[in-house]
Amino acid sequence: MTITKEDLLEARYRTEKYIHNTPVLSSSTFNSAIGGSIFFKCENFQKAGAFKSRGAINAVFSISSQEISKGVATHSSGNHAAALARAAYLRNTKAWIVMPENAPKVKIEAVKNYGGTIIFCKPTLSARESALQEIIDKTGAIEIHPYNNEKVIAGQSTAVQEILEVIPRPEIIITPVGGGGLLSGSALAAHHFSPGTKVFAAEPLNANDAFLSFTSGTFIPSVNPQTIADGLLTSLGDITFPIIQNHVNKIITTDERSIIKAMKWIWERMKLVIEPSSAVPVAAIFNNPEIFQNKTTVVVLSGGNVDLTKLPWQ
Amino acid sequence: MTITKEDLLEARYRTEKYIHNTPVLSSSTFNSAIGGSIFFKCENFQKAGAFKSRGAINAVFSISSQEISKGVATHSSGNHAAALARAAYLRNTKAWIVMPENAPKVKIEAVKNYGGTIIFCKPTLSARESALQEIIDKTGAIEIHPYNNEKVIAGQSTAVQEILEVIPRPEIIITPVGGGGLLSGSALAAHHFSPGTKVFAAEPLNANDAFLSFTSGTFIPSVNPQTIADGLLTSLGDITFPIIQNHVNKIITTDERSIIKAMKWIWERMKLVIEPSSAVPVAAIFNNPEIFQNKTTVVVLSGGNVDLTKLPWQ
Repeated sequence: MTITKEDLLEARYRTEKYIHNTPVLSSSTFNSAIGGSIFFKCENFQKAGAFKSRGAINAVFSISSQEISKGVATHSSGNHAAALARAAYLRNTKAWIVMPENAPKVKIEAVKNYGGTIIFCKPTLSARESALQEIIDKTGAIEIHPYNNEKVIAGQSTAVQEILEVIPRPEIIITPVGGGGLLSGSALAAHHFSPGTKVFAAEPLNANDAFLSFTSGTFIPSVNPQTIADGLLTSLGDITFPIIQNHVNKIITTDERSIIKAMKWIWERMKLVIEPSSAVPVAAIFNNPEIFQNKTTVVVLSGGNVDLTKLPWQ
Repeated sequence: MTITKEDLLEARYRTEKYIHNTPVLSSSTFNSAIGGSIFFKCENFQKAGAFKSRGAINAVFSISSQEISKGVATHSSGNHAAALARAAYLRNTKAWIVMPENAPKVKIEAVKNYGGTIIFCKPTLSARESALQEIIDKTGAIEIHPYNNEKVIAGQSTAVQEILEVIPRPEIIITPVGGGGLLSGSALAAHHFSPGTKVFAAEPLNANDAFLSFTSGTFIPSVNPQTIADGLLTSLGDITFPIIQNHVNKIITTDERSIIKAMKWIWERMKLVIEPSSAVPVAAIFNNPEIFQNKTTVVVLSGGNVDLTKLPWQ
């Protein structure tokens, strides 16, 4: 199954009423520093604090009334967990969320706030997968994977669809890449609605599975990656990887120090609370200004969920 | 000299090209919590990080070419210092800024970034005033007071002028009050352009000189106020106080704990970096929801300049 232009348009129509059309901001200081024209799509302002609400809403609202009645399920310790719980709440169904027992309290609270049911498990991928399978077997809930899911990818494409309505034909769109849901959705949106736009990804050097897979042409998963960008720990999926191979132009990796510096810069100068994952493309631009000089670039600031009592510069 | 409707319109025209028309944001969670419709005017996104850029630009660009050549001067350890340095830079003249020797490093850097010349003094009001007089005597620079100045007040009014273009006839506008520049400018703008709108102020209980002056009808200055809202330590001036007496409807005081809680709420939920002074009206709304229920209210988030390594909840 491929994701068509119509799937993207349908996702836009389906999600519109449940998500924010987030603002696009810019900074003259940043533009002067880089010598280009950089715009920031503020998905940190998105419902539940991250772009993940787009994919979750599109997936949950694509399911028939009959099928949805048994609820949805996923394993996630991050933004997809809260986004899915919220989408299920809005669809008037249940969400079963498998979370590692060491998940941040703030993420657990977010899922609870939206009425999601949490199943705690040991913090390993196999424990997460088996706990998820168990709950699906027991409840008949439908699994909504955080990124390796066509409806989720089509949902994530809506951020770029919105961008193109306010910044027509940017030369570059850059997003962070973890599992590749946002990146592949963005790449498909650019491909169909602004074919002249290049799509770049930014990835932590310490979790560079997408970079390695992309440059080698073979899927190479992350092994125990250690990065402050906690939204980018996952590896690409078998749906996202081919889309990225076909439609992404470049993946830029960034070191941890640059990520923290870029994050602090955005907080301090643009007064935006962004999470470390959002800072990865900002760091990529700071470290490679020559690529962005004299160009119009849109950065997707993917989310803003951080623990304010544990900031990386302290 | 009174400030007329024409002065306000002139200020708008004069400042437009040097300041941001900042966005107005809202939060459905906040609205549900209060039971009203609350909008936030994001002056934390303003040039130099605070509404102060408006008044500084209007004052500096109101001065004749001949007079401006000797530069401008002020004493300030806060946002007015950077705003005035920036305005002078844009007018191609000098800014002499008297700052207490214990001023935060980030504020000193901001003034230097805009090319202002800093004169350090002991951290007392009398030391500041005498250092300022000395530099004025020596250079012939024109003093631009941070709030007790008609052009500054007219400049600050432009935030509310912008608000009324996107939120016509709100029932309430609420701003923080320190020296009263933003409050008196806002009250005049509402008076002239939206006479049905009530203007409220919010003030820290620990620096409640405006509240005491307003309710007693007699000017009562602050004496050594201690509040986290470092932008609101100053007392009203003899120009701002009468405007506030005539055109402000209510001043609400808030305790320190509520200010910190409101500040954290805005960071965490709205992903906006705001300084403690901006959180004071938010705290006033949280503590008095009955006043704002079923009403349309606009809060001016006055600024976003904070030291990210010293956050009040840590």
